[in-house]
Amino acid sequence: MTEDKKNRYQARQQRVKEKVDSRIEAAQEEKGILLVITGNGKGKTTSGFGTVARAVGHGLKCGVAQFIKGNWDNGERNLLEQHGVQFHVMATGFTWETQNKETDTIAAQGVWQHCLQMLQDESLNLVLLDELTYMITYGYIELDEVLEALSRRPAMQTVIITGRAAHRELIAAADTVSEVKNVKHAFEAGIKAQRGVDW
Amino acid sequence: MTEDKKNRYQARQQRVKEKVDSRIEAAQEEKGILLVITGNGKGKTTSGFGTVARAVGHGLKCGVAQFIKGNWDNGERNLLEQHGVQFHVMATGFTWETQNKETDTIAAQGVWQHCLQMLQDESLNLVLLDELTYMITYGYIELDEVLEALSRRPAMQTVIITGRAAHRELIAAADTVSEVKNVKHAFEAGIKAQRGVDW
Repeated sequence: MTEDKKNRYQARQQRVKEKVDSRIEAAQEEKGILLVITGNGKGKTTSGFGTVARAVGHGLKCGVAQFIKGNWDNGERNLLEQHGVQFHVMATGFTWETQNKETDTIAAQGVWQHCLQMLQDESLNLVLLDELTYMITYGYIELDEVLEALSRRPAMQTVIITGRAAHRELIAAADTVSEVKNVKHAFEAGIKAQRGVDW
Repeated sequence: MTEDKKNRYQARQQRVKEKVDSRIEAAQEEKGILLVITGNGKGKTTSGFGTVARAVGHGLKCGVAQFIKGNWDNGERNLLEQHGVQFHVMATGFTWETQNKETDTIAAQGVWQHCLQMLQDESLNLVLLDELTYMITYGYIELDEVLEALSRRPAMQTVIITGRAAHRELIAAADTVSEVKNVKHAFEAGIKAQRGVDW
């Protein structure tokens, strides 16, 4: 690289750095955030669990509720429960497997009671409500009750909600929202779902 | 719920179940996949690490390369390294912090040599190449070399690549691609980045 080119590279990177630094300077409010990860692509639940893994690695205390998760072997639970993460799993599996709205509602409400406790627990730094969006869509859990519990939670508690088609009021209430779009999926090309990747 | 309503609910769920079952039936090819998680929203790196956490929880063997990751405290590494995950971290930090293309290239190439080894290692079930896309964009690592190493990897090895603006040839080579779109971000509203959430 010529000296001139090197100088231009440094000047360009310096401008990026100044921009980033000034944005960091401006962001000084400290509070727990509500993070919603929605959309139809792969990577929502894993993103939630990646954040839990990161938080656990920093010695933070985490709680997890998993809606729509059956009794099959649970990799994230196997790992994270040994590190003190509390798990509340709705063990009925996918709702189209059970085909009974009444029992599904009872199961969802059972897990939701644990969520309400976690959302009041000052000692929990991070709470993951995995696949909660479907429970609201199906009418198993009331949207208003969710919004109220979120708004009353401890100020420094971060909450992550994952699942497709997050309700617009949930999106409005959130601090950070990502939409994971499906560009393509191996499953559509006939590749079998795999342990450690897909569940 | 009336008997009639219940029957309709069951019939609807039964149709969903049949559709899902037939798709599962059709997807029988078994191989490691290439998963690309790109886009400008929050949740790409955490999604990669969530999959590593899941795989580790199933007893699978994983390797991680982190490009663009400084020397600051590394939550995911703290947790996962104790479970046998190998880490190769490019410790120079964000490129606009260093402002020197030559040293950045050397640092990137150093990590890339470990990636090449991981991509030949039959014993690794899952390899995460976190933020690799930027290395290709900046010209620190050659796209062709990445594509070739990916195509020659062990048949059952799954590879996850994260980062913004994944090259179209990387997307073409991938089995599963998700684009994480930023809908909104707490940082833009003046909320400070946090340990355990943002890093």
